[in-house]
Amino acid sequence: MAGDARGGDADGGDPVSDTVSDARVAVGPGRPVIPAERYQQRMEEASRLASEAGLDALLLGVGPELRYLTGYGAMPLERLTMLVLSARGRARLVVPRLEVSPARSSPAAAAGLVEIVTWDETDDAHGLAASLAGTRAPRGRVAVSNALWALHVLGLQRALPGAEFSLATAVLRRLRMRKDAEEIALLRSAAHAADRVVEQIATGRLVGRSEAEVAHEVRERLVAEGHDSATFAIVGSGPNSASPHHEAGDRLIRAGEPIVLDIGGTLGGYGSDVARTLWVTGGGSAYGPDLAFRELFAVLLDAQRLATVAVRPGVACEAIDAAARGHITEHGYGPQFFHRVGHGIGLEAHEEPYLVAGNDEPLDVGFAFSVEPGIYLEGRYGARIEDIVVCGADGPVVLNEAGRDLWVVDG
Amino acid sequence: MAGDARGGDADGGDPVSDTVSDARVAVGPGRPVIPAERYQQRMEEASRLASEAGLDALLLGVGPELRYLTGYGAMPLERLTMLVLSARGRARLVVPRLEVSPARSSPAAAAGLVEIVTWDETDDAHGLAASLAGTRAPRGRVAVSNALWALHVLGLQRALPGAEFSLATAVLRRLRMRKDAEEIALLRSAAHAADRVVEQIATGRLVGRSEAEVAHEVRERLVAEGHDSATFAIVGSGPNSASPHHEAGDRLIRAGEPIVLDIGGTLGGYGSDVARTLWVTGGGSAYGPDLAFRELFAVLLDAQRLATVAVRPGVACEAIDAAARGHITEHGYGPQFFHRVGHGIGLEAHEEPYLVAGNDEPLDVGFAFSVEPGIYLEGRYGARIEDIVVCGADGPVVLNEAGRDLWVVDG
Repeated sequence: MAGDARGGDADGGDPVSDTVSDARVAVGPGRPVIPAERYQQRMEEASRLASEAGLDALLLGVGPELRYLTGYGAMPLERLTMLVLSARGRARLVVPRLEVSPARSSPAAAAGLVEIVTWDETDDAHGLAASLAGTRAPRGRVAVSNALWALHVLGLQRALPGAEFSLATAVLRRLRMRKDAEEIALLRSAAHAADRVVEQIATGRLVGRSEAEVAHEVRERLVAEGHDSATFAIVGSGPNSASPHHEAGDRLIRAGEPIVLDIGGTLGGYGSDVARTLWVTGGGSAYGPDLAFRELFAVLLDAQRLATVAVRPGVACEAIDAAARGHITEHGYGPQFFHRVGHGIGLEAHEEPYLVAGNDEPLDVGFAFSVEPGIYLEGRYGARIEDIVVCGADGPVVLNEAGRDLWVVDG
Repeated sequence: MAGDARGGDADGGDPVSDTVSDARVAVGPGRPVIPAERYQQRMEEASRLASEAGLDALLLGVGPELRYLTGYGAMPLERLTMLVLSARGRARLVVPRLEVSPARSSPAAAAGLVEIVTWDETDDAHGLAASLAGTRAPRGRVAVSNALWALHVLGLQRALPGAEFSLATAVLRRLRMRKDAEEIALLRSAAHAADRVVEQIATGRLVGRSEAEVAHEVRERLVAEGHDSATFAIVGSGPNSASPHHEAGDRLIRAGEPIVLDIGGTLGGYGSDVARTLWVTGGGSAYGPDLAFRELFAVLLDAQRLATVAVRPGVACEAIDAAARGHITEHGYGPQFFHRVGHGIGLEAHEEPYLVAGNDEPLDVGFAFSVEPGIYLEGRYGARIEDIVVCGADGPVVLNEAGRDLWVVDG
């Protein structure tokens, strides 16, 4: 039941503590590494899928697609860095001259899998990338990475005026959604690191501190626990717990109210994303969760469990959403759960598959995604529970291990 | 002369220390705030310029343009958030329903300057934004933000099949390049915070530590000194100092070699970006800078000064580049300075104006940009000096105050 437990399994000597020690081992020098042959396999597969889709080339800027295929994680700036992967399998990495050294050190380049093509400050980088795309005059078909800047999309469209542009996700999604063993190991390390931060925050001081202060501590702790960087730290206290993407602000946390803590970052490039709901008592029994909140939370906890156990190969993404939504709706909170139940996670914080009504994509082994229903009573309070789940051959593999029951804490 | 001084003005009681105390005052609760009327002025100007340019609307996603016009800094994710600013002056902010609360709290929305239009998870957000653009059938002209994701560019192109797409920068650049007083105050606070980190790192332990460790310390110190977040921390030691965008790695720093330190982040949304070159002696006089490095550095220091003093209204951007390049070329290092001399800075780490050959844009009062020549001897070593400079009515206003001479340090 919600409300009574102190964060489920959060006491010493329990599964969470065991996990902590396991995860610490995995996060250090022993962090899983993607071997070079994996990049070769991925690029070969991507070329084959591009060819099948009738594309001439994939044009992939700085971002998750580039990192997935080559291991190269450059900074997203205005100078064009672009992997031009032709449907015939030729891979060239267009890089500004001042970044040739890090580009050469990237896993795929170091393994001789891509040819580096540099451009100088006054060169036409879009023209260069376009010339390598191998499009067939007068038209051609190219696909660009999801987050490629408009600056580059319009530049490439100008350089390839007859070409048809689409999103490379259409072909790469089939590769990227099925995480391999190293990717799952990285997601697990990231999840466990974030779990430790949840536990640290939940058992620390909260009353009288601002949301922004706590969010700052979350970010520091995520890095201290092995993350490359902290990406977000939602700390929604009191009425702010009813705003799913609340930006932590100056509001001071009080006794007798809930906090939705939704935090994440990247570890070895792979994302963590965990949400837990706390109730802060200030140490006094007079400030425990009220009956209405206990009831709301109990519905949510069951909904999150129902969605999780529905995970298995062949089940449609929308069915996971429906599993949580059906239960929440039955208990009268339907309109108060107004976002999808989850999103894929990997090199992106949000990626395919999206677990949302209308998406009939069947789950497959290795898909990794969040399961995160929420119930939000505007102006009053809200709650959310989120885990990262991998679809295993026989059902769900839940990566997070922090207790998911309501954390009733002194604060 | 290069090589002898210990970071120019870096001793106690000097201008840098004075700056430190001033800046600390500016960074706290007294941090400059952009007043709401500024957003109104900016949106009115932007509409007027869009109208003059024959555009129907500006379509601005999450990023610096949105923040510039509304103060709203949402997280860049796949759900569409978009300011649709019509050439007639109507401003609507399209937001996913789960972010309606932070959107409403944004400065422009809180001041009643924009109308919030929400969309639900299964709605067509691109169709919604397109319908608000007010384009004239069968064609129309819209301009999108520079960093808008391809996902959204192609989605909007699908929703507005007859429309001509261009970059909103073409109109917004005229506003954004001329920083107002609050923006310059924020850039100065950011610069001084980064200066303090340079001093802390230069006077701390370096020998035997890895570049990555030092980079991690840089990031922590940037945040500790008041940055919202650290964006980059280039620590190029020994031969890596010759790679301008080196990614800090496992290499251990040794006595008797240079380090290029190029660091930055954002403070109140505005960027810092400072580079200084150190020479690490390990405390022994035997490991001081060699003659060739001293000569190279002396040329660089003069080049950086020549470019800086060339700054004044009416001078072309390319002339600032040429001022540094001419001096470096005269001394035989022309091919070893292979990047532009600088970039604009503000809400973006790199923005217009770019100080590069071929850009004949005249500088104007309030333009803010880096001046950062470098000389790189591949495989051996290199050096760079970077300041943020504002074009004042009578000449350059240099925001950074950390000594720019070679920092010869024990490490």
